[in-house]
Amino acid sequence: MGYKSTDIKSIVAEILEAKRDKGGIKSLYFVGCGGSLGALYPAKTFMEKESASIKSAWINSNEFVHCTPNDFGENSILVMACHKGNTPETIQAAKLGKEKGAAVIILTWLEESEIVEFGDYIVLYSFDASQDHLAGDIDYAGEKTLCALYVAVELLAQTQEGYKNYDKFYEGAGMITNIIRNARTHVKERAKIFAKARKNDSVIYTMGSGASYGAAYMESICIFMEMQWLDSSSIHTGEFFHGPFEITDANRPFVIQISEGSTRSLDERALIFLQKYAKNIEILDAKELGLSVIDVSVVDYFNHSLFNNVYPIYNHELATIRQHPLATRRYMWKVEY
Amino acid sequence: MGYKSTDIKSIVAEILEAKRDKGGIKSLYFVGCGGSLGALYPAKTFMEKESASIKSAWINSNEFVHCTPNDFGENSILVMACHKGNTPETIQAAKLGKEKGAAVIILTWLEESEIVEFGDYIVLYSFDASQDHLAGDIDYAGEKTLCALYVAVELLAQTQEGYKNYDKFYEGAGMITNIIRNARTHVKERAKIFAKARKNDSVIYTMGSGASYGAAYMESICIFMEMQWLDSSSIHTGEFFHGPFEITDANRPFVIQISEGSTRSLDERALIFLQKYAKNIEILDAKELGLSVIDVSVVDYFNHSLFNNVYPIYNHELATIRQHPLATRRYMWKVEY
Repeated sequence: MGYKSTDIKSIVAEILEAKRDKGGIKSLYFVGCGGSLGALYPAKTFMEKESASIKSAWINSNEFVHCTPNDFGENSILVMACHKGNTPETIQAAKLGKEKGAAVIILTWLEESEIVEFGDYIVLYSFDASQDHLAGDIDYAGEKTLCALYVAVELLAQTQEGYKNYDKFYEGAGMITNIIRNARTHVKERAKIFAKARKNDSVIYTMGSGASYGAAYMESICIFMEMQWLDSSSIHTGEFFHGPFEITDANRPFVIQISEGSTRSLDERALIFLQKYAKNIEILDAKELGLSVIDVSVVDYFNHSLFNNVYPIYNHELATIRQHPLATRRYMWKVEY
Repeated sequence: MGYKSTDIKSIVAEILEAKRDKGGIKSLYFVGCGGSLGALYPAKTFMEKESASIKSAWINSNEFVHCTPNDFGENSILVMACHKGNTPETIQAAKLGKEKGAAVIILTWLEESEIVEFGDYIVLYSFDASQDHLAGDIDYAGEKTLCALYVAVELLAQTQEGYKNYDKFYEGAGMITNIIRNARTHVKERAKIFAKARKNDSVIYTMGSGASYGAAYMESICIFMEMQWLDSSSIHTGEFFHGPFEITDANRPFVIQISEGSTRSLDERALIFLQKYAKNIEILDAKELGLSVIDVSVVDYFNHSLFNNVYPIYNHELATIRQHPLATRRYMWKVEY
C-alpha cells in the first residue's frame, strides 16, 4: 500500500527517528484547500504561539506548489488535509513533498483514494457523514483539526523544546466530544430562530479570533458562500475596528464566535460594538457552550472544534428554511475549472 | 527622543551587533492593525519563502498582545506599522516589545506621535497624503510595505542564511516608483468606466494570491468596507475553487489581481473561470501594468506595491460617482469602541 495508518504519536516518533541523522525536523507545513486548509488553522496558531525553533506556515495547496518555501525538503514535515483524497492541487503538493524528501502526513476521510500513494503516513480522521450533519455521534477528538494539532503537539513534545502543557492538552481532547455533543443540543432551538430570521438575507458575516478564526473562515467560504450562495466574509475581531466595522448597520447580520481563552477580550469588544449598532447578531459563546472545563493553558486550541461542530446545527436549519439544500452546487464537481 | 531615524540596512546591522552576545535574532514578528497589518503581508510571505531558520509570523496587534508567542523576547525583532502613531492596540504591542527586550522597529508616517517612545527604531515611510490619492509624486520605494520588506531582506542577507537575490531585489526597488507612476496613468480611463459600472452595487469582491494577497485584503477592508460601506471580502485565488466560487454569477463584481511571478497561474485560472461565469470583472494585470521588467527572482514581492497604488485611482472615481467621499466615516474616530 505504501502507507500505514497508525497513531500520531508513533508517526511523529518514527519521523524523528528516521530524520535523526539527516538534520532532524526543522519545519512543519500545513497545506490544503478551502475547508481542508481552514481545519488546519488551529495547528498553525499552536506553532506560532508555542514553538520557538521549528518553522511553520499555513498555505493553500496551489500556492504551496507554485511558490514553495526554499527550505522545504527532507527536514520538513508536510501535513495536508484532503477530505476525499481527490483534490488535484493537494495531490500535487503531496507529490512535491515526496520528491523533496519531506515526511508527508495526509489527513483524509477515505481510506482508498488517489492521494494516499503520495503520503508516507495516512491518518483517517473521523467525520460526521450524515447528510444533515445532525447525527452527532462521532468521536470529535478524531477530526482533522485535532489530528493536525496532535502532530504539532507531538513534534514539540518529542523534540528539544518540549511542551509543558502536554497532559492538559490531551485531557482537553478527552473532553471535547462530550462538550460538542452538549453544545449541539443546546443551540437547537436558537438555530431555528436564527434560520427564520436570516431566511431572506443575501449576506451574512462571520467573526472570530485566535485559533478559532479558522472556523469563522470555514463557515463563511464553505457554507454561506459555497452551500448557500450568500455574500460573506470572515472578519477577525481584532481587525474589525480597523476597517470592516464601518459596514455595521441595523440590517447586516453577523455570527460572532466568542472564544474561551486568550483572545476572548477581542471578541467581547467586537460584540459590545455590535450590540450597540447592529440588530442581527448570533452569538456562539464558548463559555456558555461548556468549553471552560478545559484547562486555561490549552483551551484556545479547542474553540475551533467546538464552533465548527455547532455551526452544522444552524446550517441545517438555514438550508431547510431557505429551501437550498447544503448539497446544491452550480459549479463544484459540475463544470470544468 | 529615545529613538533614531536612520536607514534600514544600518538598523538591522545595529540590532544584530547588539544581540550578538545574547543569542542573536531568532524571530521576526510583523504586527499591526487593518491596513497597517495588510501592508506587512509581502514581508511575511518573503520570510516564509526565503528563510529557513528565522521564525516569522504576521499577527493583528491586539491578538499579539493577548496571545503573545512564547518565544517573543530579546531574540526577536518586532516590526510594526502605525500610520499616525496613535493606534492603541499597536502602542500596547510596542510597549510589550520594550518590556520583553525585543528590538522594536516602528514604521510610521508621523515623526511626532504617541508610539515613537516605544520604538527602538522609527522609520518614517513615504505616503501620498493628497486627499484624492492622485498626486502620485511620492517615492513609492519608501512606502511601509517596502520598508518592512527591507527589514526582512537585510535580516536574511546579514545573517548566516544570506539572500542570494539581494542585488536583484534592490534593483527592483529602484524601478518600482516609475512603474507605479506609469500604471496609475494607464488605468485612469478604465477606472472611470469601472466606477460608472459599479455605481449602484452593494458588494464588490477583491481577489489575489501570493505576496500581493495583502493588497486585495487592504482594498476590501479599508476601501470597500470602511470608506464605501460596501459588502466585500478578499478571496485568495487558490481558495476560490474550494468554496467562494459558488457565489459567482452575472451580477456580482470582482476586482482580480493578476500577479507577475510564481503565483500568476493561480490568478489566471480564477480569471478564466470568471470570464466564463461572471460579467463584472475588473482586471489588474501586473504584466500589462509594467511589472515584468523586475527580475523574476524577486518580482513576486513588488506586486503588492503596484496594486496597492493603482487602486487609489479607482477609489477616487468610485467615491466621486457614488458621492460617498473616501473620508466619510460613521464610527471610526467618531464613537467609542
